Amino acid sequence: MHGAGNDFVVFDAIHQQVELNAEQVRFIADRHFGVGCDQLLLVERPTRKDADFRYRIFNADGGEVEQCGNGARCFMRFVHDKGLSQEGEIRVETASGIIRPRLEVDGQVTVNMGEPRFDPDQIPFIASKQALTYELVLEDEVVEISALSMGNPHAIQYVEDIETAAVARQGAQIEAHPGFPNKVNAGFMQIVDRQNIRLRVYERGAGETLSCGTGACAAVVAGISRDLLDPTVQVATRGGVLTIHWAGGGMPVWMTGPAENVFEGEIDLG
Amino acid sequence: MHGAGNDFVVFDAIHQQVELNAEQVRFIADRHFGVGCDQLLLVERPTRKDADFRYRIFNADGGEVEQCGNGARCFMRFVHDKGLSQEGEIRVETASGIIRPRLEVDGQVTVNMGEPRFDPDQIPFIASKQALTYELVLEDEVVEISALSMGNPHAIQYVEDIETAAVARQGAQIEAHPGFPNKVNAGFMQIVDRQNIRLRVYERGAGETLSCGTGACAAVVAGISRDLLDPTVQVATRGGVLTIHWAGGGMPVWMTGPAENVFEGEIDLG
Repeated sequence: MHGAGNDFVVFDAIHQQVELNAEQVRFIADRHFGVGCDQLLLVERPTRKDADFRYRIFNADGGEVEQCGNGARCFMRFVHDKGLSQEGEIRVETASGIIRPRLEVDGQVTVNMGEPRFDPDQIPFIASKQALTYELVLEDEVVEISALSMGNPHAIQYVEDIETAAVARQGAQIEAHPGFPNKVNAGFMQIVDRQNIRLRVYERGAGETLSCGTGACAAVVAGISRDLLDPTVQVATRGGVLTIHWAGGGMPVWMTGPAENVFEGEIDLG
Repeated sequence: MHGAGNDFVVFDAIHQQVELNAEQVRFIADRHFGVGCDQLLLVERPTRKDADFRYRIFNADGGEVEQCGNGARCFMRFVHDKGLSQEGEIRVETASGIIRPRLEVDGQVTVNMGEPRFDPDQIPFIASKQALTYELVLEDEVVEISALSMGNPHAIQYVEDIETAAVARQGAQIEAHPGFPNKVNAGFMQIVDRQNIRLRVYERGAGETLSCGTGACAAVVAGISRDLLDPTVQVATRGGVLTIHWAGGGMPVWMTGPAENVFEGEIDLG
């Protein structure tokens, strides 16, 4: 499946036993020797009574992560297409709380991505006090970032031109910066106008991807926080367009975007 | 499937109607929006009486090409695993003649890759006369290459260190060099000793791949022609090891290597 070019191998772990070790995850995610994807998604039975499903996410490097917004849309579409639920909205348990994907009439999916968190301890980010922006010292330069959590940590910077931004070089340095104990997703945002941004994201454990859902949320929240953006913003990523809505402090972030089934298959991991 | 990391989407075009346009090929080959592969292979009924199957190959850019050695091994394995033939050796019609893949007892596949051709007209390569090496003028440098056809055109150069070879930069320039009217695969070969080489190949229409079967044949033939290699050579590619055997002028080239089934699936192209 893919959501705006962010691609996934999705496993029904309800009707079959799926226990993957890191080596198997890396094999499946490998684009030449395996199936090939940015992340693996597991659709599991919930462990909480207030959830319908449990959603687990593994990066291509084998590590489990807390949240993936494009994946959440594909999760909803998968659950619906496979007949695992007829509901237009479901409650999904993730490592960072409950999310509620909603299937729109046009086939797109809207996800309540929860409230952004700016408290450095919750990102986690090492800072003497909370601020709208921080200076991050890289190998040969200093970049100004916004730091916040959308269930996973994000460092967002503004760039003049998204095409020439040093995403690969700076992204790797920001991801591994000691200020982020759990590493971080590095976002590069060009502001077109108050309702439109262009975005590239260097994802933890995955490198630059075509689109990152939580990254789009984090970028728009960062822009709104600094009064550079309106509450509803179209985010153009390399893989497609996402619509992000945030009414401000104390409110959740809503993301609407595509979720496509590409192919189905079987793989022998024995 | 993959053969030493060179990966393929293989279609049984005998038991189902498969007619793909270039846009569909590009979609299927896309690693984020489609299935993802270096090449698409079609297993068809032969059009000739002296063949058991017809083998067609499409690059990721949508263009049809004459030959792919790693693909030929996967073709054999697919035909065998799907029960399309019980024979240990089959006759396969390609755009550049009949090839005869043979299944080895260890599961590897040996392919008679046909005779190499050095005549510039047959490569095709624009040269005043046939030679063992040619000087090729690139944007900022001149490289010495061997030019030959293994059913498809190859330009092979010797490099000191395969790790630091300018594969991406030079590969793109060599592929598009006006001396090769049908474009060319650019090989970069490091000679370890007379029985061992290391190889990287920038493939026509695909960029650098983990392994290129005809490229391995072409490199070994070029090395043997200049008496730098023995008749049987292990070729270490990034995706795995291939064994190439050539007894010299007038004889065919034999390639032995792995062919693995990774997963099977269905895709809706409607």
